[in-house]
Amino acid sequence: MKKFVNDPKTFVPDMLKGIALANPDTLRYVPDYNLIHRADSPNPNKVTIIQGSGSGHEPAHVMTVGKGMLDAACPGDVFAAPPLDYIYETIKLLASPRGVLLLVNNYTGDKMVFEMAQEMASTDGVEVRTLFIDDDVSVQDSTYTIGRRGVAGNFFVMKAVGAAAEAGASLDELVRIGTKVNSVTRTMGVALTACTPPAKGSPLFELGPDEIEIGVGIHGEPGRRRGKIAPATEIVDMLMEPILTDLPFASGDRVALMVNGLGGTPVSELYLVYGIAHEMAEQFGLTIGRNYVGEYCTSLDMAGASITLVRLDDEIETLLAAPAEIAMRTF
Amino acid sequence: MKKFVNDPKTFVPDMLKGIALANPDTLRYVPDYNLIHRADSPNPNKVTIIQGSGSGHEPAHVMTVGKGMLDAACPGDVFAAPPLDYIYETIKLLASPRGVLLLVNNYTGDKMVFEMAQEMASTDGVEVRTLFIDDDVSVQDSTYTIGRRGVAGNFFVMKAVGAAAEAGASLDELVRIGTKVNSVTRTMGVALTACTPPAKGSPLFELGPDEIEIGVGIHGEPGRRRGKIAPATEIVDMLMEPILTDLPFASGDRVALMVNGLGGTPVSELYLVYGIAHEMAEQFGLTIGRNYVGEYCTSLDMAGASITLVRLDDEIETLLAAPAEIAMRTF
Repeated sequence: MKKFVNDPKTFVPDMLKGIALANPDTLRYVPDYNLIHRADSPNPNKVTIIQGSGSGHEPAHVMTVGKGMLDAACPGDVFAAPPLDYIYETIKLLASPRGVLLLVNNYTGDKMVFEMAQEMASTDGVEVRTLFIDDDVSVQDSTYTIGRRGVAGNFFVMKAVGAAAEAGASLDELVRIGTKVNSVTRTMGVALTACTPPAKGSPLFELGPDEIEIGVGIHGEPGRRRGKIAPATEIVDMLMEPILTDLPFASGDRVALMVNGLGGTPVSELYLVYGIAHEMAEQFGLTIGRNYVGEYCTSLDMAGASITLVRLDDEIETLLAAPAEIAMRTF
Repeated sequence: MKKFVNDPKTFVPDMLKGIALANPDTLRYVPDYNLIHRADSPNPNKVTIIQGSGSGHEPAHVMTVGKGMLDAACPGDVFAAPPLDYIYETIKLLASPRGVLLLVNNYTGDKMVFEMAQEMASTDGVEVRTLFIDDDVSVQDSTYTIGRRGVAGNFFVMKAVGAAAEAGASLDELVRIGTKVNSVTRTMGVALTACTPPAKGSPLFELGPDEIEIGVGIHGEPGRRRGKIAPATEIVDMLMEPILTDLPFASGDRVALMVNGLGGTPVSELYLVYGIAHEMAEQFGLTIGRNYVGEYCTSLDMAGASITLVRLDDEIETLLAAPAEIAMRTF
């Protein structure tokens, strides 16, 4: 394994320390429970928004903490749900009288601990609600989920509820908005290579020299099928077709279009993919109101990409366009 | 080769088309000579700033075109200098009565064509000056250069002269500022893997399963030596020591610190590297005034990173802090 790592056991805390050192005015790092939170949180005038998940998906979610997005991210180790007590302590530390909203990608391990933490914090008198994000059209149930997986589309939920919370929305309002954004967001990804977790030191799964995994999850879990490497236009079509038919999107819809890199694919290729996806969307009759090209939710060093479409309405588009100030500045 | 590519011959134009489609309000793409330029350029009230180089270093430079940075980028094919006539046509199209500043990384191939283009445009009556950037401390002369190579530190020259041009600085002023920033900027990189150019379809050089190239150039050209993979702190020390002793930096200096990914290294590892480099810089007595973590100047899909230090003064720090609006929004 050739990575920038001192000790795989401290990979996540070493990364979190770097994030905190790079953002001394705006972020705080609490090593006791892997917590990155806004320096000005909790704020009694706004609902606290916390996202948790395994690590290895950076910039999600530890680099999306900041004004207009998350109050905090509470990550576990690489590809592992955070420990229950980390989530519970995070909620207690950052609880606002206006309530706490937890954002969780729909993976069974995460779902279990976040529901338990919510119950414990509720018993303590904190008003907590949880939103599960499940934007991945690739599979219904999967290796690690009952129901669909939550993947890069979670960015749009975070961004929309983050903007609304900043503007003073109530917890009920945030649940309504987040639910709506999730309901109109669809994603599908493809892996060109496997990823290598630092603690494993070797690729997480085998993918032949000319093979790709179509519909891959963000931990490298299987998608719809193995295929052969093909021209970019064919690969983009393999992703766009299931996305377009799932919601379904209809000619005349106004959308946000995201091309998300999975960690090992250079931005040159992401823009090439964007150009193809943009033209396919327009040929389908969609109007692209906002676009996003870069890394939003990755799978360590995996080469590959996902495409996300969000059906916009005025409320969603306004929230997505609102300013935000986060470590990852592409939004 | 597993990449998002339709035809290696059209890799660069396909990427440029994607950039233009993603930024319809602010950028224009001229396919005839690989040109990406600001929609509002040329502007008779400001000096036009153009950067050229081979492709494969994205976001440099085609994604750094925009208000407060470049007026245009004129890239060649992957790792190849742009053709002379592309540069000449770009200068003519975007010439401002206040002059044209060309920014060029010091590589012999680029130097030759840009000097010839400057001469041709000057004969046409356009006032053109050229700044060569040579921030790489790794080697003196190298595979493709006489003198030092220009690498990720070019970002700081672009950003500073871009901000000054936006504020109305003259061509002479921009040359003074750019020369100053280049003179206080030092970079060194390390490759963990080789990169694969689309047209070659296989790695550009051989690097054993436990080998790293210390002081690598942004085309994978050799640096100071081959070494073995080591803990992140040791690798960071291999980069920081030559940087710190070269200018030399001195205790009490205020600096900008950049950790730049070379294309295939996930941002989690870049922040881990940042944390180590930040602490080393502080132990040396430096004060970190600004920091940059992400991809700024890459080498296709190469895993690896470079570290850049810039010695700040009030003028440079103010210019780096000025707003900019570019496709790549991390600055």
